[in-house]
Amino acid sequence: MTSEWGAIEALEARLPKPPPGERWLGDDMAVVHRPDAPWLLLSADAVVAGVHADLTLTTIADLGWKAVVANLSDVAAMGGRPGYALVTVAGPAGTDLDGLYDGITAAADTYRCPVVGGDLSSAPVLVVTVAVTGTVDGVAVSRDGARPGDGIWLTGPLGASAAGLRLLRAGAAGEPDGADDLDGVTTAAVLRAAHARPVPRLAEGTAARIAGASAMIDVSDGLAADLGHIADASRIGYELERVPVAAGATLEEALGGGEDYQLVFCAPDDVAVGDAFAGLEPPTRIGTVVADPARRTLQGRPLRVAGWEHSL
Amino acid sequence: MTSEWGAIEALEARLPKPPPGERWLGDDMAVVHRPDAPWLLLSADAVVAGVHADLTLTTIADLGWKAVVANLSDVAAMGGRPGYALVTVAGPAGTDLDGLYDGITAAADTYRCPVVGGDLSSAPVLVVTVAVTGTVDGVAVSRDGARPGDGIWLTGPLGASAAGLRLLRAGAAGEPDGADDLDGVTTAAVLRAAHARPVPRLAEGTAARIAGASAMIDVSDGLAADLGHIADASRIGYELERVPVAAGATLEEALGGGEDYQLVFCAPDDVAVGDAFAGLEPPTRIGTVVADPARRTLQGRPLRVAGWEHSL
Repeated sequence: MTSEWGAIEALEARLPKPPPGERWLGDDMAVVHRPDAPWLLLSADAVVAGVHADLTLTTIADLGWKAVVANLSDVAAMGGRPGYALVTVAGPAGTDLDGLYDGITAAADTYRCPVVGGDLSSAPVLVVTVAVTGTVDGVAVSRDGARPGDGIWLTGPLGASAAGLRLLRAGAAGEPDGADDLDGVTTAAVLRAAHARPVPRLAEGTAARIAGASAMIDVSDGLAADLGHIADASRIGYELERVPVAAGATLEEALGGGEDYQLVFCAPDDVAVGDAFAGLEPPTRIGTVVADPARRTLQGRPLRVAGWEHSL
Repeated sequence: MTSEWGAIEALEARLPKPPPGERWLGDDMAVVHRPDAPWLLLSADAVVAGVHADLTLTTIADLGWKAVVANLSDVAAMGGRPGYALVTVAGPAGTDLDGLYDGITAAADTYRCPVVGGDLSSAPVLVVTVAVTGTVDGVAVSRDGARPGDGIWLTGPLGASAAGLRLLRAGAAGEPDGADDLDGVTTAAVLRAAHARPVPRLAEGTAARIAGASAMIDVSDGLAADLGHIADASRIGYELERVPVAAGATLEEALGGGEDYQLVFCAPDDVAVGDAFAGLEPPTRIGTVVADPARRTLQGRPLRVAGWEHSL
């Protein structure tokens, strides 16, 4: 979100409020409570060529993949499972729709979120908007339930997407020499893939919900910004002791880069977290929730929100 | 849809198919059958400034209204009721978001479809994408159930939107002299409003469903095109005897103009239609379904599909 959109919050406050018994979580995700059926999750996100994706660095198929995954990550952050996707494409004549749909269907197939409809129309610039539904078997995890003393957990290291973008921009000149090969796959290749084809942490989101997570969000705008959403909604602060950094990424990329789509969640019971993640990559406990909303630190120093930044 | 998008159907055929027990209706609407809950309807449509709406003729609030109503009309055409809307806005800095949301919330409030989430991002051109959910208490009406002998019904006259656009383009010079005033509202004002603020026929869609409609669609692309979708899906033909033309519109505008959002439906029982529409503006029986798929006529002459045309 660029600074030109400073009036967004005021405008969102003017949107109609959901009826009692339903909740609007703001931003890009909604939960509809239903008495006799699993809760319905709704999410929508737009990916704009040249703004959210640079088609000189990644393919149009990657853009399609990202448009789906951005929404699936929202579903993951509620502890839900994907339902159905609607794909709306507005773009100029000559757009490689074949390639675009390759990426869309790859993500839809991989994460079992069938595309059931959508719309195609012409526009001077490519805008791919995906809306997805989801369901939660139990109670959806929101952002406002964190309590002092809760542990703060992260599902994986951060910075891979930002580092991958850096490598893509550097081109061949940015390639490492292969000394860090791991099973024939270089760290550079892993990082580039992390940027081009991010992964929604669906299993991890469900595990966190089962572990009794009190609040959760996906790290799409950077740790400080997204953890800040939890802190604001829950009216708490946090003290972080560590932030796992992806191999090949810098601490700055880990803290400031968005689009890693890892999940950060708060949970009162460390043992329950360990149990729920059995069989999954274990999350890292990175800190603790504190009562003072003004206290937001990493190793005792204030964690600065660089502000929302597009990846370009 | 312009001719540049000729590959659309081939691409849609490549989209993942819904699991058994669920149906994808193609185009812009999906129905998800659920065993223990009302059927879930999903719809998404994009409105692109300069393509679907000319902001020199109508306001940005009108564009917002249209983006919501285009989806509600899809819900109406299934015999459903609106649920929730997700609004995704991509646009240039300086976009009048306040005005845009005025129109969006006006439609959402009027038709009780609360906006529960969405996304805002920057883009070189304004693209407003709305996704809505809906429910059907009974069985959703599709496009493929029309049978020979069914009556063909239209919920209201056609051509008002196209005539309204003509008047808006003509400006003050196109104003009638007031001789046709009706309760102080000129026909011209009615037509301009029909273009700027189209009405989704939600009550009529439910009435048609209750009347046992075998197939239904909203007239958004012109009668021949949209009735053609029913004919293709149901593998039938049709013989039309009449097409009601809105006061002040031409027959060409009625047949070729889109965006009237009236409903056209087929139904086997004329009496049931009359009963179901008690208290509503009665629909007009405009023709009869015939077995020969190649026979598509108005007063004995082939009804030409001008093809999908944007309103600009």
